[in-house]
Amino acid sequence: MGDPLGIGPEVVVKALNQDSFHRLCHPLVIGDPAVLRQTVAGLGLALQIIEVKGIGFEGEPGKIFLLPASSLPTGKDLQKLARDDSARASFAYIEKAVRLALTGEVPGIVTGPVNKEAIHRSGIPFRGHTEYLAEISQTKKFVMMLAGESLRVALVTTHIPYAAVAESLNEEGILNVIEVTSQGLRDFFRISAPRLGVAALNPHAGEGGLFGNEERVIAGAVRKAQGKGLNVSGPWPADTLFHRAVQGEFDAVVCMYHDQALIPLKLLHFDSAVNITLGLPFIRTSVDHGVAYDLAGRGLASSRSLEEAIRLAAQMTLWRQGAGGKE
Amino acid sequence: MGDPLGIGPEVVVKALNQDSFHRLCHPLVIGDPAVLRQTVAGLGLALQIIEVKGIGFEGEPGKIFLLPASSLPTGKDLQKLARDDSARASFAYIEKAVRLALTGEVPGIVTGPVNKEAIHRSGIPFRGHTEYLAEISQTKKFVMMLAGESLRVALVTTHIPYAAVAESLNEEGILNVIEVTSQGLRDFFRISAPRLGVAALNPHAGEGGLFGNEERVIAGAVRKAQGKGLNVSGPWPADTLFHRAVQGEFDAVVCMYHDQALIPLKLLHFDSAVNITLGLPFIRTSVDHGVAYDLAGRGLASSRSLEEAIRLAAQMTLWRQGAGGKE
Repeated sequence: MGDPLGIGPEVVVKALNQDSFHRLCHPLVIGDPAVLRQTVAGLGLALQIIEVKGIGFEGEPGKIFLLPASSLPTGKDLQKLARDDSARASFAYIEKAVRLALTGEVPGIVTGPVNKEAIHRSGIPFRGHTEYLAEISQTKKFVMMLAGESLRVALVTTHIPYAAVAESLNEEGILNVIEVTSQGLRDFFRISAPRLGVAALNPHAGEGGLFGNEERVIAGAVRKAQGKGLNVSGPWPADTLFHRAVQGEFDAVVCMYHDQALIPLKLLHFDSAVNITLGLPFIRTSVDHGVAYDLAGRGLASSRSLEEAIRLAAQMTLWRQGAGGKE
Repeated sequence: MGDPLGIGPEVVVKALNQDSFHRLCHPLVIGDPAVLRQTVAGLGLALQIIEVKGIGFEGEPGKIFLLPASSLPTGKDLQKLARDDSARASFAYIEKAVRLALTGEVPGIVTGPVNKEAIHRSGIPFRGHTEYLAEISQTKKFVMMLAGESLRVALVTTHIPYAAVAESLNEEGILNVIEVTSQGLRDFFRISAPRLGVAALNPHAGEGGLFGNEERVIAGAVRKAQGKGLNVSGPWPADTLFHRAVQGEFDAVVCMYHDQALIPLKLLHFDSAVNITLGLPFIRTSVDHGVAYDLAGRGLASSRSLEEAIRLAAQMTLWRQGAGGKE
């Protein structure tokens, strides 16, 4: 459900108010009954909140099935909840979801927006969803991938300063991202031999060492991946690579840094891209936005990103099972 | 005409084979008569090459007006020209064009593809078109801008290594780019109060200093520009800024580094973007590709980029004169 003080509850309710999801999957919300009921009422919707103790229900239009994981003192105004209580509750939802995923009761989880700093300040050591999920599932190699309809990007480095990227690149790290991405596309997207294009770091891929030579490290990783039989090439000049991917030459682009990946992705798929963590023992997708406290409680938030995240998680489950048709 | 050994002559001939240009401007080619005639013949076209000594002609369909600036020993196979001769000739074309532009005989120049290294090796100190044009016209503040139909980008740094960008950023340099870009959009694009969005360097614009703090330098330049009455804002997170520009919020995006600008530009305008040098005392546009020696002489090169560069230079001339309608 995400942080109760953010737009999480609102986008959950708006997304699950659409009947179409029930043809694709049986969504189970993990969150707070009072918060969700108040959100439904605030939006003037007729959705019923059905509390359950686990799976075993059949989803049906008009109903949201909820596994309660907090009972917050909501009062009249949701926005008056204590931030610490809200943050701790948002962490409890994640914990419970992961437990269901690790025991195989659910094939995957979709995470709503939480506030990292608020969780941390409430006394829970927490560096972010992805890091927590990797740690608790003892996953060493995981990759942040973002996927839109015409472009998928996988990141070698994520939230670090621009100036720290070059020194963070090493053959092993890049090779890991290539391998996990390739495996992820095979397992969850039914692409039998994923074609990966790897981006260079420097302009014109360094123009033969004239503008930097990190391309040697990247080339080393690409060669090793090729040696393992993977369909991967690069380093390619980044300014033309995304066009080539969109034209159908690559199934995903491996990017060296955050904005290299996010600039083209958000340009093409501004509010429909889904954040996916590959490498975990379960499926995990996420909304591509934050808690947006300033927008919360006003009924104005768009549930598009969450809808896409749910749809993709469901689709990935079918693809993994060998059903659902070819990508 | 660009380097005779490259695809320059071919794209010049193909572009000027289109009657539509004559309604917009009177193109004068500066190049080699024999090379152009052989190119026309090789392409099986019926274009006439008319040698002139300067301006004062009226362009007309079916004819290319040429100011000769070399007489290369072409022989039967253009591709057998000595590389040094070809490089020196390509430099002579630029020299002659600049002279015409500096004396006001022509309002602007459109440059074809040359080979920097070949010119340099042939004994002429040459660091690139833009640098040469700035030097010879004694221009201190100039900006590389790339423009497509829905996005314009201006670059603070250009062809330097990724790792050298952060330390290259300073308030004065960024302010210069903001000012020259703003002035250029007013003078040549008829935008009376250009709205510029300035990109951040770090992911999420540094998230309050968490991922780097070059944003402070950028913010300083933005404040100074605002103090001078310019309509400029930022630093904005780069991953959403280009979407905002395309949606119409900004007339141009000021970018900190090559790929930050070129990734979104080439994704949207792969073969139709035009390279413009702002700040010179004359109009200058350029093709957005290189000599492509491997493609030369085969008749396969696309003249799309040159056509757009000619069209835009002509349009900029009209806009500067206050004609040609609002942008």
